Amino acid sequence: MKKIGKQTYKIDGDVSILSTACIAGPKEKAGPLSKFFDQTVDDEFWGEETWEKAESKFIKETAELAINKSGLPTNSIDFCFAGDLINQCTTSSFGLMNLNIPYFGVFGACSTFVETNLLGSSMIDGGFAQNVLCACSSHFCSAEKQFRFPLELGNQRPPSAQWTVTAAGASVLIKDGNGPFIRTLTPGKIVDMGIKDAANMGAAMAGAALDTLVTHFNDTGRTPDYYDMIFTGDLGYIGKDILIDLSRESGFDISNNYDDCGVLIFDKKTQDTHSGGSGCGCVASVFGGYIYNQLKSGQLKKILLIATGALTNALTTQQGQTIPGIAHAISIEV
Amino acid sequence: MKKIGKQTYKIDGDVSILSTACIAGPKEKAGPLSKFFDQTVDDEFWGEETWEKAESKFIKETAELAINKSGLPTNSIDFCFAGDLINQCTTSSFGLMNLNIPYFGVFGACSTFVETNLLGSSMIDGGFAQNVLCACSSHFCSAEKQFRFPLELGNQRPPSAQWTVTAAGASVLIKDGNGPFIRTLTPGKIVDMGIKDAANMGAAMAGAALDTLVTHFNDTGRTPDYYDMIFTGDLGYIGKDILIDLSRESGFDISNNYDDCGVLIFDKKTQDTHSGGSGCGCVASVFGGYIYNQLKSGQLKKILLIATGALTNALTTQQGQTIPGIAHAISIEV
Repeated sequence: MKKIGKQTYKIDGDVSILSTACIAGPKEKAGPLSKFFDQTVDDEFWGEETWEKAESKFIKETAELAINKSGLPTNSIDFCFAGDLINQCTTSSFGLMNLNIPYFGVFGACSTFVETNLLGSSMIDGGFAQNVLCACSSHFCSAEKQFRFPLELGNQRPPSAQWTVTAAGASVLIKDGNGPFIRTLTPGKIVDMGIKDAANMGAAMAGAALDTLVTHFNDTGRTPDYYDMIFTGDLGYIGKDILIDLSRESGFDISNNYDDCGVLIFDKKTQDTHSGGSGCGCVASVFGGYIYNQLKSGQLKKILLIATGALTNALTTQQGQTIPGIAHAISIEV
Repeated sequence: MKKIGKQTYKIDGDVSILSTACIAGPKEKAGPLSKFFDQTVDDEFWGEETWEKAESKFIKETAELAINKSGLPTNSIDFCFAGDLINQCTTSSFGLMNLNIPYFGVFGACSTFVETNLLGSSMIDGGFAQNVLCACSSHFCSAEKQFRFPLELGNQRPPSAQWTVTAAGASVLIKDGNGPFIRTLTPGKIVDMGIKDAANMGAAMAGAALDTLVTHFNDTGRTPDYYDMIFTGDLGYIGKDILIDLSRESGFDISNNYDDCGVLIFDKKTQDTHSGGSGCGCVASVFGGYIYNQLKSGQLKKILLIATGALTNALTTQQGQTIPGIAHAISIEV
């Protein structure tokens, strides 16, 4: 492990993403990335009595599927890093407790998936672990109920709102292996743009994405064309446009090879999700399916994955506070 | 870094706890550990308009004090690991955002302080960081309001209930240094004892503490007498007694050199806290003051610090789910 520049770290050995898995809900099934999910579920309850229990089932089944696809015995996984959006991250702890693996709960809001992979690959490169499981989930119904309004109210959502994705994604990281390889890590700082509108998370998080993106380029001496694709997750349409503008002002034009997982996962014309998808499960499932497949097939050879989180809760919004953002980045190469 | 046994890790180089800080509230000031806190505050609001904002101030001031005491410039801190009990860990993110340090939010309920130190020391030993800040907080008023009942109701608390500590604790870890040194890490698995009573967290967490304690002894070949003291945080009176009994049944008698931070922080006779203290800020502030002082003075030379967390929220309790526990351990030697 070598620090390059201000806050980017180059992995010395090889850390491979041996397998991924993603399971998504009915709205995601109806979207453009449907065929890339390992499994889709038609019932948002997935046979459980509550949305929260359903979300736990999403992360449980997804984590087990990622382990199955890796071919590793579960007891050879040294650590699990996991998190979600639900208060006290109970989706993850209830969903993953039967795995019986040493467990680190992390919270980075929608940046959690990259946070888990960043910490997991650090533990492998630092010699602490051979195999690490990373997992994240989100659920539209449990998130709306907790962060905004009861679904039964049928509240209208403003055009800047994003739609929390019902999905889980997981990855199994191993020492060495044949790739795709996690090559650099750029952990993010908390950035406060002063945004107070909880229905405009993209704008709140764009500043954090910019900070991590520009730091990554400055630290590595790279420019956007180093990467086949740069992905954020999940700024949505509004945040994506802001990031393109702000990064151009900072001297980096990403408009040719950049997209956002929240933009990719739903069809804008037919699915009425306004500014696109969001939630820990969005970047986790889009990476686990659509992006990872392209890395495995060689269609993508070098990517930068930046996950962004809004560090807020229902109470801080009620108490008039701003919505600080954070963005963690990892680069992946085949 | 070397794995020993099943899930314990020995740090190869030296990771020192260069400094700690702890700031506590009025009830903690009235307790037996009063003189060990760096600062105490007489007003639970600490001049803020809400308890949540006050809790953010506790972690902010404590983190800044730990950095000041370390003598390091803030911009030489590579990472901050932090967490708390508030939904979406906003106490930490709001309290620490102005530090402008790459930030990892973690969630392990009351085990969070040891989780941050475990991950922080891994990052140093793995070569990713020279200096790491770890910080945690809890606040009686914000926690009661969020997890149980509005304080204004004046609800009676059952004798098995613990009292959430109003305090924050922080540590600055560095590569090399003169100690106290973090020597071994035993991350915990999620353990479900089947307890459903949210007013009996000690019983819910004792099984996780036992699992990590016994694993640590088996992995290292050590017995309780290897350590001057074993501390848990925070099982309280009931959980402490359960752990003594269960560990004796497992072949390890810890009754002579074991105590619990939740037992230590309040006076049982005069302070009416029933089963003792709890909350991320309990172990963080008791370690940051009372325990760290004894390590620095040489009164304690070898300790095992096990922090325990109840992985629950208000909703899982309402939905009839159990309260799974987790316990992370680090050993510290001078």
